[in-house]
Amino acid sequence: MRIQLNTELCGLFNIRYPVFLAGMAGLAGVRLAAAVSNAGGLGSLGAAYMSPEAIREAIRELRQLTQAPFGINFFSTSFTDRAERLPEVQRELNKLRDELGIKHASDEGVHTPNLFEEQFAVLLEEKVPVISTAFGLLPQPLLQQARSAGLRVVAMVTTVVEAIMAEQAGCDAVVAQGSEAGGHRGTFDVVRHPMGANIGVMALVPQIVDRVRIPVIAAGGIMDGRGLVAALALGAQGAQMGTRFLTSVESGAHEAYKDALLASTEESTIITKAFSGRPARGIVNRYIRHWQDSGVEPLPFPTQNTITRDIRNAAAEQNNTEFMSLWAGQATRMLTDRENAADILAETIKQAESILGIKSDY
Amino acid sequence: MRIQLNTELCGLFNIRYPVFLAGMAGLAGVRLAAAVSNAGGLGSLGAAYMSPEAIREAIRELRQLTQAPFGINFFSTSFTDRAERLPEVQRELNKLRDELGIKHASDEGVHTPNLFEEQFAVLLEEKVPVISTAFGLLPQPLLQQARSAGLRVVAMVTTVVEAIMAEQAGCDAVVAQGSEAGGHRGTFDVVRHPMGANIGVMALVPQIVDRVRIPVIAAGGIMDGRGLVAALALGAQGAQMGTRFLTSVESGAHEAYKDALLASTEESTIITKAFSGRPARGIVNRYIRHWQDSGVEPLPFPTQNTITRDIRNAAAEQNNTEFMSLWAGQATRMLTDRENAADILAETIKQAESILGIKSDY
Repeated sequence: MRIQLNTELCGLFNIRYPVFLAGMAGLAGVRLAAAVSNAGGLGSLGAAYMSPEAIREAIRELRQLTQAPFGINFFSTSFTDRAERLPEVQRELNKLRDELGIKHASDEGVHTPNLFEEQFAVLLEEKVPVISTAFGLLPQPLLQQARSAGLRVVAMVTTVVEAIMAEQAGCDAVVAQGSEAGGHRGTFDVVRHPMGANIGVMALVPQIVDRVRIPVIAAGGIMDGRGLVAALALGAQGAQMGTRFLTSVESGAHEAYKDALLASTEESTIITKAFSGRPARGIVNRYIRHWQDSGVEPLPFPTQNTITRDIRNAAAEQNNTEFMSLWAGQATRMLTDRENAADILAETIKQAESILGIKSDY
Repeated sequence: MRIQLNTELCGLFNIRYPVFLAGMAGLAGVRLAAAVSNAGGLGSLGAAYMSPEAIREAIRELRQLTQAPFGINFFSTSFTDRAERLPEVQRELNKLRDELGIKHASDEGVHTPNLFEEQFAVLLEEKVPVISTAFGLLPQPLLQQARSAGLRVVAMVTTVVEAIMAEQAGCDAVVAQGSEAGGHRGTFDVVRHPMGANIGVMALVPQIVDRVRIPVIAAGGIMDGRGLVAALALGAQGAQMGTRFLTSVESGAHEAYKDALLASTEESTIITKAFSGRPARGIVNRYIRHWQDSGVEPLPFPTQNTITRDIRNAAAEQNNTEFMSLWAGQATRMLTDRENAADILAETIKQAESILGIKSDY
């Protein structure tokens, strides 16, 4: 066996380079997804919080911008609000709302719209090339529908057992998300692993590769050609990069968020449930510290996410990074400032080719 | 640049293969260190808790067993006992002593013998080839003494800033310890990072490599040739392996501990301060869970370590893994059962050569 960049994964997904864009909700929009797909990777639209109509619109835009395959990322199932402790949590959030100068929220129930089934229907109708999911597997009938319709299905996993479940369910590939990764932990069972299963890529990838036959895509802390080659050495067939593209020109990240990423180091992030109720890695700021100090447990996902949206929106309007969710992986020292996504991908491939001593194909 | 196994590190340390044995206190003894050195890596004696006389004896034994270079690992400085909360902590420990059927400990002060200066004197007198430290850097005068005497000095680091400090202090190389690693976190400042700075290897290594000129040795979750090649791809000049050798024939680990390692998975470990007062990664057992549930903060290092030794010793006598410190990294599914250390190293190198498509040199 020798390391090569043109892995089976490239054939399976009809892409030139074994690099996936992470489907970062609210951050990986049409522009970024199209740029990565056009550059030879697999672009992804982070559609988790988008309405079915907005997803349909975005898919059509994407198809205007690229002829290449792309993925749509969303959650694997529907979620139910659980707001028994709403008053206690709103009391804490109201202190933060005071700091931002926005109005208090009411304690009278939460209703998170359940978009899942309609979102899935749109992906099927639009015959998107790839569906990728976080937090679990698509329900079996839907997964089979997608595969029968010729869609590729990818699940993000954080443990060996999750990877085996994904293979047995019929997924075409798994993204093995290491603890280095920014944003939400993909862990299926957050009762068993309240802060996520946080296994580093170096340990996670080969242990999964040894136990599944489907391709494994490594994710977490991969920022350049060195990380890509390391992923392939571990037995992965490709790398997924998220944070690396957040400071790109085409990224959907707020400019103040980009600046915070560029100013951060490997010591800046923590895993917190404070924003969404699910564990996710982001740069520590006032919002996260307030929750740590409060001792109050956030509500479960998606309820915490729904009731904190006004805070994030106000923070964005005020350019105030202390109250934004600054999702970031552990390797932000390797970020570049407002580089084109295509250049980021090209440099990654060229560096990987150089490390492997193979003639550039780019 | 192309990846090669014969890195500068090999020349600098006069070793054939760029693999270091982690200096696991109480686990990496003379037999294991000699086996790794004889097989072409850099064996290490875990001498942190050994008396100066025992270290001298071990060094002489080592020199009987191998002509090759080896390292001696110990702490970087002396530590002072802090036992203000001793009664509260002993109350918890006595519950565990009851479960083990051993006698209660007294509340009347703790005295951890301070071995550091005498340990260092022995290493200097014996002119050991390599000194490696955890928890910080050798005090500057001692570091200069060691270097002037021709000893190589290696520091374990867990952040970019720690690596820069090590280079500036005059270390010959750094071990970049990723969050995957078993045993104690090498983090210098545990006030700032109470559970250690836990950056995955994939993120940590290239960020350090970009900022220091001395060789970087990657550590954490590296179990075979895949991990070694991945480390080199990330820019490291070698890999340090600890857990990988714990189940070897020559390992100093208790047989019941070896069995626990072989039965564990990537989901089995956690970082805890319960055994020593410093954060360390081990397999979750009854002892760790008791501390989690108690809500009592362990005493700082080394006091917690000193007052819990009777429990670990009794657990070892009783073959009871529920009360042992089962240090382990996150990749234990890749362990092999009672293999010779030399075979582990040989297979690692052969696999790395195969991945790199280079003719075997072993």
